Amino acid sequence: MTTTTQVWTRRHILSLMDFSVAELDMILQTAVSFRDVLSRRMKKVPALQGQVVTNMFFEPSTRTRSSFELAAKRLSADVMNFSPSSSSLSKGETILDTAKTYLAMGADIMVIRHKQSGVPQAIAQEMDRIKSGVSVLNAGDGRHAHPSQALLDLFTICRVIDPDNPSCALLKDKKIAIVGDIVHSRVARSNIWSLMAAGAEVHLAAPPTLLPEFFRDFAQGSDGKLFVHWEIDEAITDADFVMTLRLQHERMTAHLLPSLREYHQGFGITAKRLKSCKPDVKVLHPGPVNRGVELASDIMDHPALSLISEQVTNGVAVRMALLYLIGSSKKT
Amino acid sequence: MTTTTQVWTRRHILSLMDFSVAELDMILQTAVSFRDVLSRRMKKVPALQGQVVTNMFFEPSTRTRSSFELAAKRLSADVMNFSPSSSSLSKGETILDTAKTYLAMGADIMVIRHKQSGVPQAIAQEMDRIKSGVSVLNAGDGRHAHPSQALLDLFTICRVIDPDNPSCALLKDKKIAIVGDIVHSRVARSNIWSLMAAGAEVHLAAPPTLLPEFFRDFAQGSDGKLFVHWEIDEAITDADFVMTLRLQHERMTAHLLPSLREYHQGFGITAKRLKSCKPDVKVLHPGPVNRGVELASDIMDHPALSLISEQVTNGVAVRMALLYLIGSSKKT
Amino acid sequence: MTTTTQVWTRRHILSLMDFSVAELDMILQTAVSFRDVLSRRMKKVPALQGQVVTNMFFEPSTRTRSSFELAAKRLSADVMNFSPSSSSLSKGETILDTAKTYLAMGADIMVIRHKQSGVPQAIAQEMDRIKSGVSVLNAGDGRHAHPSQALLDLFTICRVIDPDNPSCALLKDKKIAIVGDIVHSRVARSNIWSLMAAGAEVHLAAPPTLLPEFFRDFAQGSDGKLFVHWEIDEAITDADFVMTLRLQHERMTAHLLPSLREYHQGFGITAKRLKSCKPDVKVLHPGPVNRGVELASDIMDHPALSLISEQVTNGVAVRMALLYLIGSSKKT
Repeated sequence: MTTTTQVWTRRHILSLMDFSVAELDMILQTAVSFRDVLSRRMKKVPALQGQVVTNMFFEPSTRTRSSFELAAKRLSADVMNFSPSSSSLSKGETILDTAKTYLAMGADIMVIRHKQSGVPQAIAQEMDRIKSGVSVLNAGDGRHAHPSQALLDLFTICRVIDPDNPSCALLKDKKIAIVGDIVHSRVARSNIWSLMAAGAEVHLAAPPTLLPEFFRDFAQGSDGKLFVHWEIDEAITDADFVMTLRLQHERMTAHLLPSLREYHQGFGITAKRLKSCKPDVKVLHPGPVNRGVELASDIMDHPALSLISEQVTNGVAVRMALLYLIGSSKKT
Repeated sequence: MTTTTQVWTRRHILSLMDFSVAELDMILQTAVSFRDVLSRRMKKVPALQGQVVTNMFFEPSTRTRSSFELAAKRLSADVMNFSPSSSSLSKGETILDTAKTYLAMGADIMVIRHKQSGVPQAIAQEMDRIKSGVSVLNAGDGRHAHPSQALLDLFTICRVIDPDNPSCALLKDKKIAIVGDIVHSRVARSNIWSLMAAGAEVHLAAPPTLLPEFFRDFAQGSDGKLFVHWEIDEAITDADFVMTLRLQHERMTAHLLPSLREYHQGFGITAKRLKSCKPDVKVLHPGPVNRGVELASDIMDHPALSLISEQVTNGVAVRMALLYLIGSSKKT
Repeated sequence: MTTTTQVWTRRHILSLMDFSVAELDMILQTAVSFRDVLSRRMKKVPALQGQVVTNMFFEPSTRTRSSFELAAKRLSADVMNFSPSSSSLSKGETILDTAKTYLAMGADIMVIRHKQSGVPQAIAQEMDRIKSGVSVLNAGDGRHAHPSQALLDLFTICRVIDPDNPSCALLKDKKIAIVGDIVHSRVARSNIWSLMAAGAEVHLAAPPTLLPEFFRDFAQGSDGKLFVHWEIDEAITDADFVMTLRLQHERMTAHLLPSLREYHQGFGITAKRLKSCKPDVKVLHPGPVNRGVELASDIMDHPALSLISEQVTNGVAVRMALLYLIGSSKKT
């Protein structure tokens, strides 16, 4: 299906909305080789030696930042961490000026997270406008996109089916349920694009406050690939994979949910509920998990059911692949 | 006394309570060679290249964290710093889930500090239960233990007696006074185990609020190796070494002490007090020192009396030895 | 004018007040070679491998700290970052004790920023007194000095005139205006010393609240090299370079300025104002810029006028040169 003669051409990774299957496959295959590197005692390769990766996390995140930091270090890049608390943002500088300062210091790749949708795109545009050659990698922007998370999910799912040769073709006609706080989730949005592109059947399930009516309109234009459910049963029946989403506590204070307990009763993943899925169903969660809310505690810890640890490990491999692909293309 | 045919077998370092003399000697001898590395211009060795050391300091500490970070870097390991402030702990994740996330990212050694006693042990148990192969190094848990501090104290004391060949046998019948806030001190607890194992005579001295009655019961079962004093004079008379402990300001607000001044009058180490010790007595303190409280300022700065700088330097060497021993054993 | 037979002899860089032209030229020439390194794909050299550079920023600063961190990493040094928030300063330790702790851990070079003038000097003195061999680099102390900023400004200005062979001689009879909050600025103070030493004519301009009368006395002893203006026009007429200074918002709350708008009207650099300068005038700013206050936004982004990005890039090269010079001299 894919060939190794493919050449990577994107400078930035901002959203998966327009990614081709060939591009997704190229990422999956590059990640396979880095996944092997991670299982060795000597986990480093010199691919990005001398290059500078700047982590600009305007919204704090230990987990994703650590994953990118480790990925960059294992490619032998130098890593700069920008922490907004001690930053000059409070000093009246614009975000673009901050980005240009890191550019002038020598950043080759900027990994950017921001609570406002569109910030990574704006920085990427400016970097292109001034012909800087810098690559921007979106590490999560508002409710918009979180491409590296969706790609590690895709990689994890494909590797369940064929560990050594993951590719989009493996997902054809697989049923994948995405359960939880869809409307606020950039993870869900990015996954919808990549899973549909890969040919999977995607079923969304959540209470109406977390999955508004307009998603149905969107589903109707999806050519029978995307389905919307306001109850969980239909969504997970015969599912091959169940992706759960993190529930922010803020949703409760905003009165979008009556209580965590009621959410769990209606949409929490339990052993009993998983009986209606395919016999070899697997469960995913981007973490951190609220135990007993999105997932029953025993499901989370069940080695045959939960892919959560795999997701974290694969996250490092997939981020190495992304940094490698854009880091190499940039200079060609 | 010790031979180099000894093999290190522990995966974790959690407490010194059950360490054998052979194990202590093996640490001391390994630290000697790293102490030499530190005095070279090129202070790095490739021992842990490609391995990941994760510093998980749930309780903040610049000094100990820096020491572990430097030790790991000088063994050429990659270091990940987990900072609780920007962490997902506030997001409802359990501590074990946090540890498993770092495990999945590829941590080989976890250096853990927590204000609750037992947290490093709990993480080590879970890591073993799931057969992860990860090593846990306790960097201080509640009032329980701080093994790397006690080991650097042991190394520092032994090197005063024989710089090139430190071993427990050197401490036989040496008198060592530990003065200060014993009851709240994990440093004191860890030192008591290692110094007694080495055959030293250990004398504790503090006001009764900081050294409760039950320590006397414990001393009575010590076979004449541990003594409890509620005045300083007997404790330090003829002492070879005086270890002072940091006095937390919180002790005052909790009304355990009338004032810093009165503490200094009763238990502060001064030139006058040191006259009753052995002529070549040395003074230790784990830092940071409250000048003029635990120690008179001139004692702290006296190169012939104070071992405080030596302790800091030796701390890096001893932590290199610990990371090296558990990092190598793990993969054998 | 300068020869390569010159040998660097300073252990510390604390202030530029007594720097000779030969020393300034040596820094400029060393920075040229590192500027070349930065434009290569592989941006590292092994000059300080195995050495430890400690960034002790008691006053937070993302920009300057990142620049020093990157400079040190590109010289292959190990970098330790000391963050005051999680430090033991709150634990009653003195600043000298903190410095000695890092010394004992193995620091070779200490890069120090503090809001009190004189702290880096005090630490350097103590390090010399105890014959530690450690170098101290002042990264900004109170209103006193910020030598690395003034040196990168000097380097940037000289490279405009001769990119490959920057030297002080190039500045002879050049007119350089420094506009803005002179009285609170360590950047201005350090620049005055280096620019005057280089033989430039320096013109200061600011409202009287930010440029007090005593500067005029100082100017009168300058042998016709330093001039004070309370209006901008005379200062910038025929100027070759206009250096603007950051305006702290605190100045407004202290009632030193009526409003940012009035400041901009009186002293802001605009296209119209620059017409009275030399035709090839260039504008500098140490950053971060308050757009529309010190500088009109279009001037800041004008590639033919603004040297701001150059300053940031040169900052890394000049700091590499400084770390290299003191790091090498130390061991000779």
